[in-house]
Amino acid sequence: MSRGSKFCFLALWLIAYQIAFAQGENAVRKLLNAQVAAWNAGNVEGYMKGYWDSDSTVFISGGNITRGYKSVLARYKKSYDSRSKMGKLEFEELVLRQPSPFLIIASGIWRLHRTNDLPWGRFTLLIEKKSEGWRIVYDHTSSAN
Amino acid sequence: MSRGSKFCFLALWLIAYQIAFAQGENAVRKLLNAQVAAWNAGNVEGYMKGYWDSDSTVFISGGNITRGYKSVLARYKKSYDSRSKMGKLEFEELVLRQPSPFLIIASGIWRLHRTNDLPWGRFTLLIEKKSEGWRIVYDHTSSAN
Repeated sequence: MSRGSKFCFLALWLIAYQIAFAQGENAVRKLLNAQVAAWNAGNVEGYMKGYWDSDSTVFISGGNITRGYKSVLARYKKSYDSRSKMGKLEFEELVLRQPSPFLIIASGIWRLHRTNDLPWGRFTLLIEKKSEGWRIVYDHTSSAN
Repeated sequence: MSRGSKFCFLALWLIAYQIAFAQGENAVRKLLNAQVAAWNAGNVEGYMKGYWDSDSTVFISGGNITRGYKSVLARYKKSYDSRSKMGKLEFEELVLRQPSPFLIIASGIWRLHRTNDLPWGRFTLLIEKKSEGWRIVYDHTSSAN
């Protein structure tokens, strides 16, 4: 390659890389918004579509660790077996970091508006780009209560 | 470059990349071991040397977020103002992920062996390679108690 074509190649690569990054952030925001919408429609299975459907998926809450999509789904279904327990979910103070084109780290506040209480806390999510799209592979949640 | 020298260059680059990764894991294990040793010597400042000395450093516990090295240090000093409160620290089930040459994500269990109680929980750490070495830039801790 000539010096000019090398520069051109590099410039195109940098632009493609930036686009991949921007698309990642947008895709992850969409994913989290879809989760909130599903939750607030009382649809736990729909909410769970944000997680990677894999035995490697990890959910941590307090001192508990739950491994595998099916176990995480079962845990959610058990803890939130009614609309009143689910309440209205809201994410706040969302911050995204993207250390690679295939990984976004999301942190923020989760909040449930319920009739009898207002539980809330913080989360750290590892969200990876899989062949099926961006999916949460690791969720560390803590509670303020 | 000839095809042969291109291949050679690529092979060397891949080897260098693998070495950088392996060195990262070792450096992070050393960092965490040094933190445990400092803690168990009653040295909170020494323990804090594992964190990035920056206003951007974040420590999350339950629903609380503490921003900045100085604030995180002050929080530790306030919460653990005696050897009996510090107890003996142990990390367990340490898992490291390295999505880039400059970032390692560590998760595991923290445990304090104290005379009157045995608090424990889980942590998720973002550890970045800075010019001064590998440092924790983000710590999300949750408690089992």
